[in-house]
Amino acid sequence: MKNSFFSRFTPQEPKFFPMLKHLSEILMVSADLLVESLEHNSPKERNEYYKRIKDIEREGDKQTHLIFDELGKTFITPFDREDIHDLASTIDDVIDGINSSAKRITIYNPRPISDSGKELSRLIRQEAQYIAKAMDELETFRKKPTALREYCVKLHDIENQADDVYELFVKKLFEEEKDCIELIKIKEIMQELEKTTDAAERVGKILRNLIVKYA
Amino acid sequence: MKNSFFSRFTPQEPKFFPMLKHLSEILMVSADLLVESLEHNSPKERNEYYKRIKDIEREGDKQTHLIFDELGKTFITPFDREDIHDLASTIDDVIDGINSSAKRITIYNPRPISDSGKELSRLIRQEAQYIAKAMDELETFRKKPTALREYCVKLHDIENQADDVYELFVKKLFEEEKDCIELIKIKEIMQELEKTTDAAERVGKILRNLIVKYA
Amino acid sequence: MKNSFFSRFTPQEPKFFPMLKHLSEILMVSADLLVESLEHNSPKERNEYYKRIKDIEREGDKQTHLIFDELGKTFITPFDREDIHDLASTIDDVIDGINSSAKRITIYNPRPISDSGKELSRLIRQEAQYIAKAMDELETFRKKPTALREYCVKLHDIENQADDVYELFVKKLFEEEKDCIELIKIKEIMQELEKTTDAAERVGKILRNLIVKYA
Repeated sequence: MKNSFFSRFTPQEPKFFPMLKHLSEILMVSADLLVESLEHNSPKERNEYYKRIKDIEREGDKQTHLIFDELGKTFITPFDREDIHDLASTIDDVIDGINSSAKRITIYNPRPISDSGKELSRLIRQEAQYIAKAMDELETFRKKPTALREYCVKLHDIENQADDVYELFVKKLFEEEKDCIELIKIKEIMQELEKTTDAAERVGKILRNLIVKYA
Repeated sequence: MKNSFFSRFTPQEPKFFPMLKHLSEILMVSADLLVESLEHNSPKERNEYYKRIKDIEREGDKQTHLIFDELGKTFITPFDREDIHDLASTIDDVIDGINSSAKRITIYNPRPISDSGKELSRLIRQEAQYIAKAMDELETFRKKPTALREYCVKLHDIENQADDVYELFVKKLFEEEKDCIELIKIKEIMQELEKTTDAAERVGKILRNLIVKYA
Repeated sequence: MKNSFFSRFTPQEPKFFPMLKHLSEILMVSADLLVESLEHNSPKERNEYYKRIKDIEREGDKQTHLIFDELGKTFITPFDREDIHDLASTIDDVIDGINSSAKRITIYNPRPISDSGKELSRLIRQEAQYIAKAMDELETFRKKPTALREYCVKLHDIENQADDVYELFVKKLFEEEKDCIELIKIKEIMQELEKTTDAAERVGKILRNLIVKYA
């Protein structure tokens, strides 16, 4: 664990890039499982998906902490220390949001998830894909920021779509659903899905800030 | 976008002060709209206010990111970089809270908002006014901290008032409201309003910390 | 309030350690009160416990801000500035979580708290105890990290236990509770208790990161 004097001064290495890329791949696996899980409605199936998503969430947690450890041990980093820290912890927030959504589905056990809920999960998967693509640009965007900039725009647009899907649906839910307990279940699950799309957009904001600072 | 070597070393300029002032003015517009909106109860009116508040929220978001961009491009800042960052992002949190409150009102469409809800919105407006006043002191408080210190006290006091209003009201709501769905609507809206007064108090805490560090 | 040039350069003093220790003691008092309060079910008793917990919460707030003030005035700190800041503010989050839990109990006034709720409060108390023990290691863990490392493992394990208690209970609640308003009350209180155990685990993560960086 101990950092030698020298290891703290070795020249800047891009080891953070593959570590962040790996984190974004964990996010992709998690988002795929979420989309798939919403097609399954029995308590048993829901619980099995949640278990798998929870395992992935722990993997994401470990990977995030490996990145933090590396930050703690490395003297020279490719970007400001806090930028890498924020990027990793916000990607981890998206993974956490997916886990919380699956957790609510399994412990509340609502009726089959609505088309709007499924739509939100697909938007989360799209966001995960753009985040993973963005990680491939970290090494090169200082010279060629076009692709990274485009992914940030996409993340922003998807979040706006998610907002609209969420608002329309919840409005209708409060007009039509008369079963109060079912309403609570669905509202809380939709809220968690929407919060997850927000976290993904925050990743986009951090990336956009990197472009401003370094490109 | 590229920072020239020299632009990063130009002498400290107070450009952050007018930028933060402008952000606080956006907050004031937003808080005014919130207070006004609570007097209107038809779904159509609620939706129109929400649209306007949402537009303002996006303006706040843009202004906050202009401040972050400026931070990324400026080498010498009037305070520690994180202080300016925290100040901008926490003022933005207040604007976001107002937006979320209006959003909940429009998508839940509850009965007319209670006097306690209106009271909370007026407390948020008061907080916004003190925050805007505080921004005028940023340039001079190192020598004359009295006014800024007073605004921090006010922000703290208003938050305590908001706490009392919220607690009394929600207690009564749970005793008296028998319509479960209406209870959910009102509880969630009141929670969001109360959370917004908290965010405004956090601005006060950041300002108080600035006084300790620099005055 | 003004920092003299010299006070900012005085040699590194361990004054932060007793300050953090004191904050953890405030947390312990608060956690003890929470456990005790859950044995009392009349509105009057609940309200009295909440008042006491609220007073403690304000004390915690003050102590946290004393630590921030000290950070603002001290040039050389035993760890990176942000580490001390995060440690104090996350311990304060645990105290806030206890306060919010007690607040919800007093304003919602649900039926007697379930065994699972009591179990969560005892887990929070255990976490508080490990956090307080951990504060005793801050001065020496660079040379002997074993004890601190063990407390981090404990904090992690307790959080996992809390997760299981929470999930099992809420699942059953949604299957069995037919009184919608009672369900809301209990769900929200349990959520706040669970969130508090999360905050305590975050303290463990910060401590673990300190070991990586400094031991």
